[in-house]
Amino acid sequence: MAEVRFGLIGAGRIGQVHALAVQAVPGARITEVVDVLPAAAEKIADKFAAKVVSLDEMFASSNVDAFIIASSTDTHAPLLERCAAVGKPVFCEKPIDLSYARAEACSAAVQASGITCMLGFNRRFDPQFAYLKKQMEAGVIGKLETLIITSRDPSPPPAEYIKVSGGLFRDMMIHDFDMARWLLGEEPTRLYATGSVLVDPAIGEAGDVDTASVTLSTQSGAIAIITNSRRATYGYDQRIEAFGEKGMLQAGNQLENTVKFAGAEGVMGAKPQFFFLERYADAYRIELTHFVAALQQGSKPATSEEDGLAALRLADAAVQSLKTGQPVDL
Amino acid sequence: MAEVRFGLIGAGRIGQVHALAVQAVPGARITEVVDVLPAAAEKIADKFAAKVVSLDEMFASSNVDAFIIASSTDTHAPLLERCAAVGKPVFCEKPIDLSYARAEACSAAVQASGITCMLGFNRRFDPQFAYLKKQMEAGVIGKLETLIITSRDPSPPPAEYIKVSGGLFRDMMIHDFDMARWLLGEEPTRLYATGSVLVDPAIGEAGDVDTASVTLSTQSGAIAIITNSRRATYGYDQRIEAFGEKGMLQAGNQLENTVKFAGAEGVMGAKPQFFFLERYADAYRIELTHFVAALQQGSKPATSEEDGLAALRLADAAVQSLKTGQPVDL
Amino acid sequence: MAEVRFGLIGAGRIGQVHALAVQAVPGARITEVVDVLPAAAEKIADKFAAKVVSLDEMFASSNVDAFIIASSTDTHAPLLERCAAVGKPVFCEKPIDLSYARAEACSAAVQASGITCMLGFNRRFDPQFAYLKKQMEAGVIGKLETLIITSRDPSPPPAEYIKVSGGLFRDMMIHDFDMARWLLGEEPTRLYATGSVLVDPAIGEAGDVDTASVTLSTQSGAIAIITNSRRATYGYDQRIEAFGEKGMLQAGNQLENTVKFAGAEGVMGAKPQFFFLERYADAYRIELTHFVAALQQGSKPATSEEDGLAALRLADAAVQSLKTGQPVDL
Amino acid sequence: MAEVRFGLIGAGRIGQVHALAVQAVPGARITEVVDVLPAAAEKIADKFAAKVVSLDEMFASSNVDAFIIASSTDTHAPLLERCAAVGKPVFCEKPIDLSYARAEACSAAVQASGITCMLGFNRRFDPQFAYLKKQMEAGVIGKLETLIITSRDPSPPPAEYIKVSGGLFRDMMIHDFDMARWLLGEEPTRLYATGSVLVDPAIGEAGDVDTASVTLSTQSGAIAIITNSRRATYGYDQRIEAFGEKGMLQAGNQLENTVKFAGAEGVMGAKPQFFFLERYADAYRIELTHFVAALQQGSKPATSEEDGLAALRLADAAVQSLKTGQPVDL
Repeated sequence: MAEVRFGLIGAGRIGQVHALAVQAVPGARITEVVDVLPAAAEKIADKFAAKVVSLDEMFASSNVDAFIIASSTDTHAPLLERCAAVGKPVFCEKPIDLSYARAEACSAAVQASGITCMLGFNRRFDPQFAYLKKQMEAGVIGKLETLIITSRDPSPPPAEYIKVSGGLFRDMMIHDFDMARWLLGEEPTRLYATGSVLVDPAIGEAGDVDTASVTLSTQSGAIAIITNSRRATYGYDQRIEAFGEKGMLQAGNQLENTVKFAGAEGVMGAKPQFFFLERYADAYRIELTHFVAALQQGSKPATSEEDGLAALRLADAAVQSLKTGQPVDL
Repeated sequence: MAEVRFGLIGAGRIGQVHALAVQAVPGARITEVVDVLPAAAEKIADKFAAKVVSLDEMFASSNVDAFIIASSTDTHAPLLERCAAVGKPVFCEKPIDLSYARAEACSAAVQASGITCMLGFNRRFDPQFAYLKKQMEAGVIGKLETLIITSRDPSPPPAEYIKVSGGLFRDMMIHDFDMARWLLGEEPTRLYATGSVLVDPAIGEAGDVDTASVTLSTQSGAIAIITNSRRATYGYDQRIEAFGEKGMLQAGNQLENTVKFAGAEGVMGAKPQFFFLERYADAYRIELTHFVAALQQGSKPATSEEDGLAALRLADAAVQSLKTGQPVDL
Repeated sequence: MAEVRFGLIGAGRIGQVHALAVQAVPGARITEVVDVLPAAAEKIADKFAAKVVSLDEMFASSNVDAFIIASSTDTHAPLLERCAAVGKPVFCEKPIDLSYARAEACSAAVQASGITCMLGFNRRFDPQFAYLKKQMEAGVIGKLETLIITSRDPSPPPAEYIKVSGGLFRDMMIHDFDMARWLLGEEPTRLYATGSVLVDPAIGEAGDVDTASVTLSTQSGAIAIITNSRRATYGYDQRIEAFGEKGMLQAGNQLENTVKFAGAEGVMGAKPQFFFLERYADAYRIELTHFVAALQQGSKPATSEEDGLAALRLADAAVQSLKTGQPVDL
Repeated sequence: MAEVRFGLIGAGRIGQVHALAVQAVPGARITEVVDVLPAAAEKIADKFAAKVVSLDEMFASSNVDAFIIASSTDTHAPLLERCAAVGKPVFCEKPIDLSYARAEACSAAVQASGITCMLGFNRRFDPQFAYLKKQMEAGVIGKLETLIITSRDPSPPPAEYIKVSGGLFRDMMIHDFDMARWLLGEEPTRLYATGSVLVDPAIGEAGDVDTASVTLSTQSGAIAIITNSRRATYGYDQRIEAFGEKGMLQAGNQLENTVKFAGAEGVMGAKPQFFFLERYADAYRIELTHFVAALQQGSKPATSEEDGLAALRLADAAVQSLKTGQPVDL
């Protein structure tokens, strides 16, 4: 595939991020766009000289080589199945579906069709985390023994969002589960979750927690710890610490700037970048570049629907562990 | 008590540390010393113009106002009981005993006697951790939500030591349990432990683990995570992260020096100070100063036999959790 | 000017950087391009759907609203004068000319024509330095007292380049002179330069130095120190320290990544970003965005031909001071 | 000399520091003490079981093997000469005298007598700077090219002190001149000074400056820059940057603690330690330990009256350069 012409489904915030990423890749462009809000689609179409179409038109179009699914979560599975049906490759935002059964059925359809499907675990493409992974693969810390993933959002979403989000483990920690699987290089065998409502009582009333930790055990004996909070006054906190037999790798936060002020109160530095659009701006760009390259070279993208299922399995186990108070064998 | 004359029991490495600390406190000195190795006792006696005596002589002496117990762990409980019997204050290295029942009985005797008893949880006196605690008490992070304690030794002890140590949870993580209790400001209600043998197979053969993590839940919803390893190539890793509603406090490692070298390979800084004698040199000094001040002012020291029991209770629960694979309600 | 159509003169490395920057600005695009190497011009023309033209065609074109001069230094002055002659705005890479007299004559022609002329002092648009300046303007350090600018290249240019470069002070430190003027907020009144040949003897044979420092005095009493080296093993070193009555602001280097490795040798972090294209990637983009915005809003750009003259005056004074060994009054 | 019994001349702040340092060295103690304020002498005598004596008694005493001169600056030269006269070793606080001629005469007397004389350039014994020097000697940065010494006091002394201090160059920067000589490993050949009154007008009225910088040139081409300020809101700023052909070594400030707070305003760390007594506490101790070791081993101490003269020569040249506005050849 020399040139890749994309049909973009979903023209909201993350759809725009992907559209910009595509435009920066030589040999790729957005040719068609669809959104439930026509104005949103028009805006992107104008910017990138693309055409606003209906979903049916897009799936029938001869001007579309591949799809980007950036619409709401509940539409992912049926759209993936339509991609499978027309036999064209697709990049889809995570998750496949909040229901494991539904996600599994969709995944089966995708696999049966043989299409290339990449799932948007953007953090794997973050230059910091990718460098850390590369160093691990180069043997810098030897065998991994303890992995500590810290992930905190700057501020909690409204309770309305919480209700449809699938909960902290499926909505937020899902990224960390993928990160853990990727860095561990093996599937966790046991999971223990604990959680609390400390940030916003409305989150508790919606049946969710806003502060949580999960411990993952593995066959090799490596231990992974994930901690999440829905609110950090100092911004988006995204750190990884990988400790092994030969030493420790730490990926710290990217700060808003490198300027420090030394004054009578102490030495003040900048906060971490505010949220995912800032921190993962490069990751989103690199992710789509990777997808285009995979299509052009006929190679398999680094993430697939399998990764989506595996992370969801961990999220479901965490929900169960939190509910029962017991660890869950995987 | 204007002047405090100490009888030092145990003239090994940590006994010497305490002796030096005492000498630096105005109004305090070592007057008598005893050790199973007479040469060790002589060395300290010479240095500080003290007298080498037998245990019986020391407990009968009119030249001793208070005791420092720095002998082997199995002697702590009987010695504490002798202190209680003669009604004189005592500073005792942790733990009271590796058996909770024995420690509890000893503790009861101590309390019945009414003597002042301070247990050596030295890390509470580390200037970094003490400052972090002070900032928490000043409300800097508001309500504590997640506490992460990292504690790694530079290299594992020999398997012979492991066998008599009581195991990682009672020997090493006991310090972190005390730290967790101190910083949480409440007793944990539930504990889940996991552990592996990744550093030295001989540790596994001795029935212990060398890599472990514990999750503590509390009434307030705050979550504490402790991770331990018996080996870190880069030195003694002693860090605390306290995350709360208003922000995060982090106490980092003290480095061997502040010099950085920027070269073709990157920017290299110094390692953390090697081990507890280096890192906690100030803490040991401040700890004994605190004990002397408590005796002189008739106040209660910051740690007591109760803290020893409470930390041991958590260690025993961790042993049980690791064995059963289930969380333990406390 | 709603839309700004640019004629790009010079399609080399820096021309490409500016072309990419222009394309990212809504309402701006490259319509025509010229280079002494037709292949270079073709490459940019292809990428941005622009037209390869001759210089005469470009200056006569009705499809060009403004010029970008990114050709070799010796062409800057005559090209600026052609821009003045056709009465269209121009963004020109520094310097105007290596000869002050020539630069002054050109500058007079530009001013007489009334065209908008922005000179490319890209570092003022670096987010770190811009933030530092903003903090200074907000009064964070109060009155500036000591300014220390460190500027080191990763590796020296070939001696052939040195010979036509105008020398370290006019070619390299000119950026730091501009930075000093900008941050001081006043013109230096006295300058003392010292320099050595420590990096490459060929640089000395070419009549230049490769290691230098300059001290600037001012009316207010503030002191500015600039140090330069043509070679730093650890990459491009670009730091500013502004010390004042209320404290100190420091803008550190931007590192290649945030990952740290703790091992037996110490704690290793990444090097500074390699060179100007990496470190100032954002600055180049923001600089052109600023120029387009100035054209669209009819406002004066932040830098002008006056700044080019003023920095060159300092560079010439530094050459004289180095030669005579005496300070130069300005 | 197996045991070293010291006569301490001057029982003020720095005398107490030295007395404590001596007591911590095995085989060394203070046996006699004298001060113009008898109460000050009594206090130290009590603490260390020493005897309060008169100057005449001390110089005649058979209980004194060596002297520590920690009295006021104007007494240093005559006291050093008395040490020379009685032929006993002496540790003397810098400077020998504020007058170069007087210092030179005194130095000649000391040398003629053949006594061991160590001058208190304490910073050479700071563990950070000593480590940096050791790394330089190990060839880590190769040939030194640029040396930047930053030295700022937390707050200015009263104008009364300024008047008798010899001025900023002789009183404050003298330490940095010694540091520059030590790290350069060669004598500067040319010096250019600039200075301003920015901190306190009273300092200007006393004929001195409070903000200054000096540029030192050398035979090898290495350049050294020293900047001083009498006031830094953030504490005692003591940093060294040594840049060479193979990289850069930086010795940063020692902070009050390692705790960082991340909050809505940014990430706040501790200030540098307040002033010289805190920052150089270790240096003062190591310095005296070094002197005792030199006496016991019969070796030459690391600093001598020659270093005092050489630093004073640079200070005098700086005064002259500031006055004339011209560089001074050395």
